[in-house]
Amino acid sequence: MKFRLKVEVGLKPGHSDPEGETAARLLKELGYKVERVNVSKVYTILLEAGSKNEALLRAEEMCRRLLANPTKDNYTITVEEEK
Amino acid sequence: MKFRLKVEVGLKPGHSDPEGETAARLLKELGYKVERVNVSKVYTILLEAGSKNEALLRAEEMCRRLLANPTKDNYTITVEEEK
Repeated sequence: MKFRLKVEVGLKPGHSDPEGETAARLLKELGYKVERVNVSKVYTILLEAGSKNEALLRAEEMCRRLLANPTKDNYTITVEEEK
Repeated sequence: MKFRLKVEVGLKPGHSDPEGETAARLLKELGYKVERVNVSKVYTILLEAGSKNEALLRAEEMCRRLLANPTKDNYTITVEEEK
């Protein structure tokens, strides 16, 4: 079975997010009433796995081993079967 | 009223995604049965607006004016009221 994982990796609260700060400043300069911008990254991964649960376990491993930095990043994972 | 916009900006199909290709290669080297990885960016924006509809219109403008490149990027927007 094939699954589509969406892994969103973003900074933990309190970590500096210069890209978000820059976007916020530029949007304010364009006239928008923006209070804050945070930037995160989404990995959309097509994965072969035996079950949805296995796909989720693999995604958590991938975050720990490669995609996220445990010191500074939070991550959220969603899994859906790919038709 | 305050709204939380999530704007996901990713490459249109057919555009080269070297960061996704690198992640796919590394995940395969770690033993995962990965077919493809695409990387996109999410801007989470706290915005002051009069209504949900206005917030959505502002988000679409922000994409056209700053956040997305119409030649190579697709974007999706979700809006929810911030409690």
